[in-house]
Amino acid sequence: MLERAVVLISGGLDSATTLAIAISEGYECYALSFDYGQRHAVELASARAISDRIGAKEWKLISFDLGEFGGSALTDMDIPVPLKASEGIPLTYVPARNTVFLSFALGWAEVLSADHIYIGVNAVDYSGYPDCRPEYIEAFERMAGLATKSAVEGNPVSVVAPLIHLSKSDIIRKGVELGVDYSVTVSCYQPDSDGRACGRCDSCRIRTAGFQSAGVEDPTRYMQGHPAPE
Amino acid sequence: MLERAVVLISGGLDSATTLAIAISEGYECYALSFDYGQRHAVELASARAISDRIGAKEWKLISFDLGEFGGSALTDMDIPVPLKASEGIPLTYVPARNTVFLSFALGWAEVLSADHIYIGVNAVDYSGYPDCRPEYIEAFERMAGLATKSAVEGNPVSVVAPLIHLSKSDIIRKGVELGVDYSVTVSCYQPDSDGRACGRCDSCRIRTAGFQSAGVEDPTRYMQGHPAPE
Repeated sequence: MLERAVVLISGGLDSATTLAIAISEGYECYALSFDYGQRHAVELASARAISDRIGAKEWKLISFDLGEFGGSALTDMDIPVPLKASEGIPLTYVPARNTVFLSFALGWAEVLSADHIYIGVNAVDYSGYPDCRPEYIEAFERMAGLATKSAVEGNPVSVVAPLIHLSKSDIIRKGVELGVDYSVTVSCYQPDSDGRACGRCDSCRIRTAGFQSAGVEDPTRYMQGHPAPE
Repeated sequence: MLERAVVLISGGLDSATTLAIAISEGYECYALSFDYGQRHAVELASARAISDRIGAKEWKLISFDLGEFGGSALTDMDIPVPLKASEGIPLTYVPARNTVFLSFALGWAEVLSADHIYIGVNAVDYSGYPDCRPEYIEAFERMAGLATKSAVEGNPVSVVAPLIHLSKSDIIRKGVELGVDYSVTVSCYQPDSDGRACGRCDSCRIRTAGFQSAGVEDPTRYMQGHPAPE
């Protein structure tokens, strides 16, 4: 039996690349996505398409409403998505999001007897989110090693973040090498209902620059046909 | 302004006592419960009643389906609830449950600027669940100290488990001292739709023995009018 891994899939470029890496490393991959009350629910259609095309064994969607808590431009409709790069941790930060996602992944991993969880966090172009840093991932893994029946019985899960030290252009080059079709991925914080990107938010800016710097043609569908000029 | 705490409320005896303790320690308390596909949804009515009566400032319910993953007698209808005490970790263990619960609490705590999360786990009569042990709680707190914007800005959350070293009878005595009305709490793994307890599952056995050992009259409503004999 192939070893199994749970892979968190957001619908974006990073998690698509992460899935391709996990498959290339020989794992049978179980893709996990979340409908958490995000503004950009169109990313879920992308998440499913990515899982199918790149070759996950199964895709599961867990739904809950982080918007209940408020506090983020991504889940609270009263907070506008910022269109300029900001100092410090931006308004698009969602409180405890990766912790919640990894916790569900931990539960599914235990039921599947999967020893690995893959997550596409990235500490280089990470928009300043605290839960994208290596020390956070290590602390989660240590906690997970005490949390589950599997761990207590000698099979702790490892949390793998293969993109953590890569730049956006390194990630794109890696994905292209593995055959990832990035046209199906959505990175924009406020895409239209057709999945076209605004070309102006933090996430679009980082992605656009990544394709430029990687020397790879940008397959993103922009609302205006192209990213907005600076 | 009063300092705030998020308190996890299951509808059972332990979390009711935990809320009473947090309030007695001077916190403005925000009660958080989960509808996670559990067999015994009647506990949610109890959770709400406990929060109201004991005096939480607000009660919030987050819904998702851990049953999607399977693997536990509490969420998977194909696995019967065991009626005899078992060796090791029992079938009622729900993979990563406390990790998922604490993760949501962490998100809400950050939005509320609450510095504390209270959880009623207990390492003495803990049914062998790995995520009820002190070392697990400490590891979660350490991870949380790296996970959030608040933590990065110098306000990490502390995870308080005031019952962790108490026996069930100590917990009951403490609660009675603080005026907790245990008749509204439900501990049974398979109560009827009216909230009456089976008197036979692990959780009932531990609770019944706790009242006996505390010398406190057992206010539990049992299906047969009394707990089943050994």
